[in-house]
Amino acid sequence: MAHDTTPFEARLRTVAEIVERRLEALLSDTPRAGEIARPARLMAAMRHAALAGGKRLRPFLAIEAARMLGCEGEAALRAGLAVELVHCYSLVHDDLPAMDDDDLRRGKPTVHKAYDDATAILAGDALLTLAFEVATEPADDVPGEVRAVLAAGLARASGLAGMVGGQMLDLAAEGRWGPRALAQADIRELQAMKTGALLAFSAQAGAIAAQASPEDEARLLAYGRALGAAFQIADDILDREATAEALGKAVGKDAGKGKGTLVDTLGIDGARAECDRLVEAAAAALAPYGARAEVLEQAARFTAARKA
Amino acid sequence: MAHDTTPFEARLRTVAEIVERRLEALLSDTPRAGEIARPARLMAAMRHAALAGGKRLRPFLAIEAARMLGCEGEAALRAGLAVELVHCYSLVHDDLPAMDDDDLRRGKPTVHKAYDDATAILAGDALLTLAFEVATEPADDVPGEVRAVLAAGLARASGLAGMVGGQMLDLAAEGRWGPRALAQADIRELQAMKTGALLAFSAQAGAIAAQASPEDEARLLAYGRALGAAFQIADDILDREATAEALGKAVGKDAGKGKGTLVDTLGIDGARAECDRLVEAAAAALAPYGARAEVLEQAARFTAARKA
Repeated sequence: MAHDTTPFEARLRTVAEIVERRLEALLSDTPRAGEIARPARLMAAMRHAALAGGKRLRPFLAIEAARMLGCEGEAALRAGLAVELVHCYSLVHDDLPAMDDDDLRRGKPTVHKAYDDATAILAGDALLTLAFEVATEPADDVPGEVRAVLAAGLARASGLAGMVGGQMLDLAAEGRWGPRALAQADIRELQAMKTGALLAFSAQAGAIAAQASPEDEARLLAYGRALGAAFQIADDILDREATAEALGKAVGKDAGKGKGTLVDTLGIDGARAECDRLVEAAAAALAPYGARAEVLEQAARFTAARKA
Repeated sequence: MAHDTTPFEARLRTVAEIVERRLEALLSDTPRAGEIARPARLMAAMRHAALAGGKRLRPFLAIEAARMLGCEGEAALRAGLAVELVHCYSLVHDDLPAMDDDDLRRGKPTVHKAYDDATAILAGDALLTLAFEVATEPADDVPGEVRAVLAAGLARASGLAGMVGGQMLDLAAEGRWGPRALAQADIRELQAMKTGALLAFSAQAGAIAAQASPEDEARLLAYGRALGAAFQIADDILDREATAEALGKAVGKDAGKGKGTLVDTLGIDGARAECDRLVEAAAAALAPYGARAEVLEQAARFTAARKA
């Protein structure tokens, strides 16, 4: 696996390994000081959801944004772990039979298939809660204000007006609560909430961890929003064109449910052009940083061009 | 309703009204600055879960503990709102068909009955996320360290080794993943996690909000743990003896599922005696505060003697 990869891909993998090791430690069966017990089945389901898989793109954005701004410490890694735990919980709940009803995720059975619905609901709840524990628990070199602001931003990005709200709009777009034809503006709003908000916050979180200026934070947020929009269009193109084997999950589900995507309204070529435009917008937001922004620019290109 | 109540009950109601008003504002359909949209069905389900019901015992403990320690500001109210939002989310998820499968809660249809399972899962997720937003978002007179420590404590009390872990042990105690006979020690551990941890943290949160000494915080935690254990025994006695009409939810469910409770191992009279002993232990933990602890002592007695 280590051969014929680009330096960017090697860096992505290195960060993923750091994240994976910390997640393994967080999800140990051994109770921490002050804990009564860690139920074995719950911990196993949480590990199933959070370990051994994924590019760890969100922590990569947080960690590389912080690094660009001069911070390589614990604060950035904490931010990255927190956004990844929120991402992992959201996959577990979205896959439930009552929601998107998916059996396969990253080529493995989804948590409710490997365990059961109750365990999956609770594992998701516990991963979400753990995200906020990681973001806020005392750390030697991370001031309380930084930890609190990270957690508040994470909550806004992932809650009722962010990721959870976006999933609600996505279910509504299937027509399960009445007819619903989505205009292009509605699709963009839904996507900005469902996937965009957490991706955008991941980059912003790096700036918060680095205790950067409001101007830096705004630039990273603009970068993250453009990357997030590109990510979702790339996802819609993959859902239409890739095979289930390459993706490790079911494909064509959105079209099957009559959900509108930007591929419908723009066509495949139009969607590709829009994706390219967003990658350039992401890069433009980072222009003030010059060559220091190279890794994040590559992350935007990688996001748009990914095959899985 | 306002006549023939004790001063304690009047105070409990006053705090409940303050909490209710703040929850109404938090759960408004109107997006806050920076929010893209608040999906109407999601907000309605969240309001169904969080408004118009409940004694608001947890915020009462946080607010009264802080008041006893000299803090009457926003920090204590924030702590109270955060623990209440976690409590409300946990009821929504626990009531789901995959979990305890309850149709009735406080005399109203549960969220998944009034809406549907997907909406209930997402409303719970959003309430949990909102709890951490409330705990951590910037406030003029609440230092970042206080907000971060409140959120970290809330996460530990409500996560994998706290409330969520306790619900997992409770489902296991039904025997759904294999035979499981609970010894008295197991029941106490389960209850300390499932209901005790959040109640205990509620009192502790008041001390954190008040920026009290570690000794004060430890006393409030000890008080909260005893109160939490008394609460659960009182709940088990009510489940055995009350009517569904008085409780506003189904009764006798634990016995029906063969779950062990302390009423089984101690008998009704033994359980009542244990409950009384715990109330005295709660009061004893607050002895250093003398008359200032009167409201919290009454809260412990109220918890043990409640009829619903």
